[in-house]
Amino acid sequence: MAGNTIGQVFRVTTFGESHGVALGCIVDGCPPGLEISEADLQVDLDRRRPGTSKYTTQRREPDEVRFLSGVFEGKTTGTSIGLMIENTDQRSQDYSKIADRFRPGHADYTYHQKYGHRDYRGGGRSSARETAMRVAAGAIAKKYLKQEYGIEVRCYLSQMGDVTIDNVDWDQVEQNPFFCPDASKLDALDELIRNLKKEGDSIGAKLTVVANNVPVGLGEPVFDRLDADIAYALMGINAVKGVEIGDGFDVVNQRGSEHRDELTPSGFKSNHAGGILGGISSGQEIVAHLALKPTSSITVPGETINVDGETVDVVTRGRHDPCVGIRAVPIAEAMVAIVLMDHLLRHRAQNAGVETATPKI
Amino acid sequence: MAGNTIGQVFRVTTFGESHGVALGCIVDGCPPGLEISEADLQVDLDRRRPGTSKYTTQRREPDEVRFLSGVFEGKTTGTSIGLMIENTDQRSQDYSKIADRFRPGHADYTYHQKYGHRDYRGGGRSSARETAMRVAAGAIAKKYLKQEYGIEVRCYLSQMGDVTIDNVDWDQVEQNPFFCPDASKLDALDELIRNLKKEGDSIGAKLTVVANNVPVGLGEPVFDRLDADIAYALMGINAVKGVEIGDGFDVVNQRGSEHRDELTPSGFKSNHAGGILGGISSGQEIVAHLALKPTSSITVPGETINVDGETVDVVTRGRHDPCVGIRAVPIAEAMVAIVLMDHLLRHRAQNAGVETATPKI
Amino acid sequence: MAGNTIGQVFRVTTFGESHGVALGCIVDGCPPGLEISEADLQVDLDRRRPGTSKYTTQRREPDEVRFLSGVFEGKTTGTSIGLMIENTDQRSQDYSKIADRFRPGHADYTYHQKYGHRDYRGGGRSSARETAMRVAAGAIAKKYLKQEYGIEVRCYLSQMGDVTIDNVDWDQVEQNPFFCPDASKLDALDELIRNLKKEGDSIGAKLTVVANNVPVGLGEPVFDRLDADIAYALMGINAVKGVEIGDGFDVVNQRGSEHRDELTPSGFKSNHAGGILGGISSGQEIVAHLALKPTSSITVPGETINVDGETVDVVTRGRHDPCVGIRAVPIAEAMVAIVLMDHLLRHRAQNAGVETATPKI
Amino acid sequence: MAGNTIGQVFRVTTFGESHGVALGCIVDGCPPGLEISEADLQVDLDRRRPGTSKYTTQRREPDEVRFLSGVFEGKTTGTSIGLMIENTDQRSQDYSKIADRFRPGHADYTYHQKYGHRDYRGGGRSSARETAMRVAAGAIAKKYLKQEYGIEVRCYLSQMGDVTIDNVDWDQVEQNPFFCPDASKLDALDELIRNLKKEGDSIGAKLTVVANNVPVGLGEPVFDRLDADIAYALMGINAVKGVEIGDGFDVVNQRGSEHRDELTPSGFKSNHAGGILGGISSGQEIVAHLALKPTSSITVPGETINVDGETVDVVTRGRHDPCVGIRAVPIAEAMVAIVLMDHLLRHRAQNAGVETATPKI
Repeated sequence: MAGNTIGQVFRVTTFGESHGVALGCIVDGCPPGLEISEADLQVDLDRRRPGTSKYTTQRREPDEVRFLSGVFEGKTTGTSIGLMIENTDQRSQDYSKIADRFRPGHADYTYHQKYGHRDYRGGGRSSARETAMRVAAGAIAKKYLKQEYGIEVRCYLSQMGDVTIDNVDWDQVEQNPFFCPDASKLDALDELIRNLKKEGDSIGAKLTVVANNVPVGLGEPVFDRLDADIAYALMGINAVKGVEIGDGFDVVNQRGSEHRDELTPSGFKSNHAGGILGGISSGQEIVAHLALKPTSSITVPGETINVDGETVDVVTRGRHDPCVGIRAVPIAEAMVAIVLMDHLLRHRAQNAGVETATPKI
Repeated sequence: MAGNTIGQVFRVTTFGESHGVALGCIVDGCPPGLEISEADLQVDLDRRRPGTSKYTTQRREPDEVRFLSGVFEGKTTGTSIGLMIENTDQRSQDYSKIADRFRPGHADYTYHQKYGHRDYRGGGRSSARETAMRVAAGAIAKKYLKQEYGIEVRCYLSQMGDVTIDNVDWDQVEQNPFFCPDASKLDALDELIRNLKKEGDSIGAKLTVVANNVPVGLGEPVFDRLDADIAYALMGINAVKGVEIGDGFDVVNQRGSEHRDELTPSGFKSNHAGGILGGISSGQEIVAHLALKPTSSITVPGETINVDGETVDVVTRGRHDPCVGIRAVPIAEAMVAIVLMDHLLRHRAQNAGVETATPKI
Repeated sequence: MAGNTIGQVFRVTTFGESHGVALGCIVDGCPPGLEISEADLQVDLDRRRPGTSKYTTQRREPDEVRFLSGVFEGKTTGTSIGLMIENTDQRSQDYSKIADRFRPGHADYTYHQKYGHRDYRGGGRSSARETAMRVAAGAIAKKYLKQEYGIEVRCYLSQMGDVTIDNVDWDQVEQNPFFCPDASKLDALDELIRNLKKEGDSIGAKLTVVANNVPVGLGEPVFDRLDADIAYALMGINAVKGVEIGDGFDVVNQRGSEHRDELTPSGFKSNHAGGILGGISSGQEIVAHLALKPTSSITVPGETINVDGETVDVVTRGRHDPCVGIRAVPIAEAMVAIVLMDHLLRHRAQNAGVETATPKI
Repeated sequence: MAGNTIGQVFRVTTFGESHGVALGCIVDGCPPGLEISEADLQVDLDRRRPGTSKYTTQRREPDEVRFLSGVFEGKTTGTSIGLMIENTDQRSQDYSKIADRFRPGHADYTYHQKYGHRDYRGGGRSSARETAMRVAAGAIAKKYLKQEYGIEVRCYLSQMGDVTIDNVDWDQVEQNPFFCPDASKLDALDELIRNLKKEGDSIGAKLTVVANNVPVGLGEPVFDRLDADIAYALMGINAVKGVEIGDGFDVVNQRGSEHRDELTPSGFKSNHAGGILGGISSGQEIVAHLALKPTSSITVPGETINVDGETVDVVTRGRHDPCVGIRAVPIAEAMVAIVLMDHLLRHRAQNAGVETATPKI
């Protein structure tokens, strides 16, 4: 049973390979009547798009998304929405040398073993290019959440290599190509990337996603908890190796008396929980962190095997990002938005008639 | 849309509250012909069971599981398996004082807001007691995985508070009540727990799950990746706030040349990836870590509100674990086993006729 | 991927064999706050129960259902509801002779081939006894539909053998053991059954299900249409071989000008469609018919083979219904109620904010 | 929760409106390594395509399907397959007059009520044009079933109006535009259609689908039975009002001694069951019938209301089929093929290791 779908009520199913004809997806379950245009989606696609700064890959794709269905006279109809981005800058000649060898750290080996056959051009289906459709679908969710419930989902770079970022000024995030919320760290980031490019190497990153104005009550215990579904969605982004909610791994060395967020008539005193209790949103800010590995597409030569099991060298010659974490910012937002959208609709299904109990703090 | 089911092909659906009549679950999709008895399940249930050591809660439940269907003449029939554990030691009088107040750090507030009404006895559905059924269902998966594929899923305590555990001797894990793989750390753990009891406080923990002999090829990109589903399953355990695969958050400060696991004709040179590439198992050991928060059920008094929004005190008087991470060891194993079982069957569905490509390293 | 679950939002998963320990099910996704008791379910269970009249099997099971979870202080909590009926009158000795042979017209042969192993006692999982849990789960749906939306789902016997029933007086249906809506046909039915018993044979039946007060708008095109899901649910009842919506097979010889239901400001002029247009409820009565085959459990000797492929005789000696269609009346109601409940909640998920357009006729 | 997906393991999700930019679908879960080309799909698309004979609508669409992903070097890769047909002959001017009125017998009214807003051009999403993608996806399933298991799924016209067809010569079916298996009935059909055109009216039809070489064991009781899923799939085709398996509604007046198919060492003596027992395929031919209503798109004037609730006339002026049943033949085949494909893969998931018991007759 293949796994190209995310969501139960707000369902996103994607298709497409890095160097195929097109990328696309179907968004099923979007409420009718939402005003939406391709321009609404293009904003986030452009934030993810390669070639926009010297810090990211120079592959140039306009990444223009088109609605193929589900939107009529500027509004969603409630039927399935077809989306497509045609691949234009394919340069498949770049990849001929790696058709028969498994790039270490990539999915070449595992796809080959699983399917017995794979599209080797640019990583095929396993390429991060596929995430463009997640961003497009996520933009629909973001618009609905914002417009109908005032919910905002935003993300920033919280660490790259040893450059940690503690001051969060949301106004800064969109002002620099790193999505960095602290202007004082921009020089350090610039230097880090420049050195990596010189060395032909790459670096990992940590991102932080925050959703605010999320109503209390979203999440479905005991398995489809909001935190469990956020973990699933974020871990499912290419290169992600870790996910935290709220204090995350810091809880290992915390006391119960320190961690538990006490309640007062005017709200919670703290937010160690990251806005989720028992798998259900508490009405506080939802806070999640994710760790992205350094890309394996580097010019430092590496050792691997080919499909015949013989030792061969591998050197990536294509255009790649020194830190894939940067462009993952809109992807992480999209994934959390899709999860929240799905849980919002799921909650409505079962609880439409319920009077929300007082006090709602 | 409620979320009490995990798995697509091997599906586990649970029911039951801490102080209700019974806990139970349905395991659907188990292959027929598997020899299984209640005793096979009881082993793991006993590992999770409270009251077995001085380090865990003294609530005493025999936790005897019964097959209600799906097993005939000692073998699974391929039809749905009904499982039940009757609640015997309920003591609901302990909980009368908290019926109208929201214990901080617990799901009382969020359940109340979501459903407008809740079973307040011992946390009701949000109690970790519910995980007994996960352990029972996981034991079925573990037996099948072991018997048919030689796959083993094991877990150990890798950190509690500031006691870190680096030496892993699997033979030690079942020899002590902490599931600690390093005998030299037992005294430190004992002291930590004793102090916590004195203070009436609790502490967090980190666990590590390892699955070996997992064949290459399990996992369904791009959303139902093996790592994404493990993250979902582990984050869905009560008290978990973080999940890592392989090097986890350490990747943030790694270089690509350091992180990528090179391949040789005799196998991978390293396992930074934790056995998963592109969301698909690589044939290496699968390694996951999880962080569990300190339980909020402590005797240190706390501040909260009641259902009328008034400030009230809360002190937990019941029987509780100073470190809920300890008893989570068999739960984490069960969750990973359920995920692996599900992905194994999913893989078989789509790929039955595929010749696994050589070389299979 | 096993198939013991029906429904997407209101989900019912069943377990249990005819002569096992117990039958049970989990109802997940029921809205919280519904007042419900075991007595509410027992009414329909008693209508389905064997041994209540001389026209049905004399197997005597009290079929007492118990809530194991999900109901607290008389109201649903929104969490998963566990239900159980213990098997008491098992008499498995009756079935020893058929352990190794395949009763014609039964699922013995197909279960044996599919699973390689089966519970042969009373048909095991394939016994119609399993439908008791559907009736129990359906009773929850019926109560919610009635109370919150005024929707009623009712069923009657519309034909048995050559006894056709055209006059529908709902007041009659519950007044006789045949669920026959026309008192003038009772004698003919009585005679038919008496003759069948004498001959040791059985007969088919046709049932009609009607749901009224169903709001316009339920059903999810293009696959999960309301009519498609009703067809799935009714065809999934043991012994059903045909399902019709509205005029059903009569449409084959109708003209478009005759079939289409014209609209007026005060409503539709006719209801050939059976209350569903384009897979969505139209606000009219929903009408479905189903055909049930004559049971193969008869005392007329038959020819078959055993597990070794040798020709053997088979004669049913147990207690059986001459017309299984009679007791299927509450089952058909339950299945349609489950489908309507599920679609009602699904509709709410996606369309909560939509102003229903005028005119609503 | 929207319903544009069919299948659990072999999953087909469609999008597209009659007069939108394009129709498309994603086929997820297709086994890798299947040789397939667009030409394989075009064969069935051409059989469904309008404008190919004087008996069907003259709308001319080339209906050229394109693979957008999932096929590489002529073989499926195991990843999601994107398919698209661009709409070329849209003529949306034809439909301007019906934008504000509800055509009787169509989904205009129900879509309007459900979603508050609809694409009125040519029926939008509710148009039978959407079924082109089902045919395309079904062609993939048909190729796999045929090549790997020798399974064939075929369909023929078994009745139109009062012209019943009892002699089945498969060689005839593809020789005439009616898919009629009896050459002696062609004149009667021709006359019937000519008269209908003269009158501006339409007629219903009955189709019969037969699948042979289906292995024993497909189908997942107790809900996802093979017969239940076939009923769901066929009832989900536009205009279908009834579905039968095997003897269908004839069973109402059959005796058990007549209906049950006895077994002998060389096979079943008869096939009243239509190849399915207990919801599981028996290895016999699978036989299903479906009834399609006469289209409501006729030139006979009708009465209806507009969106303001006022009485208005409606006359269909576009190009329409006098009998939509004819072009439904490849659609019915596609739907049954999708169901069989899905159940084949589902069976493999759970039963891979099971030795099929002897005797396999």
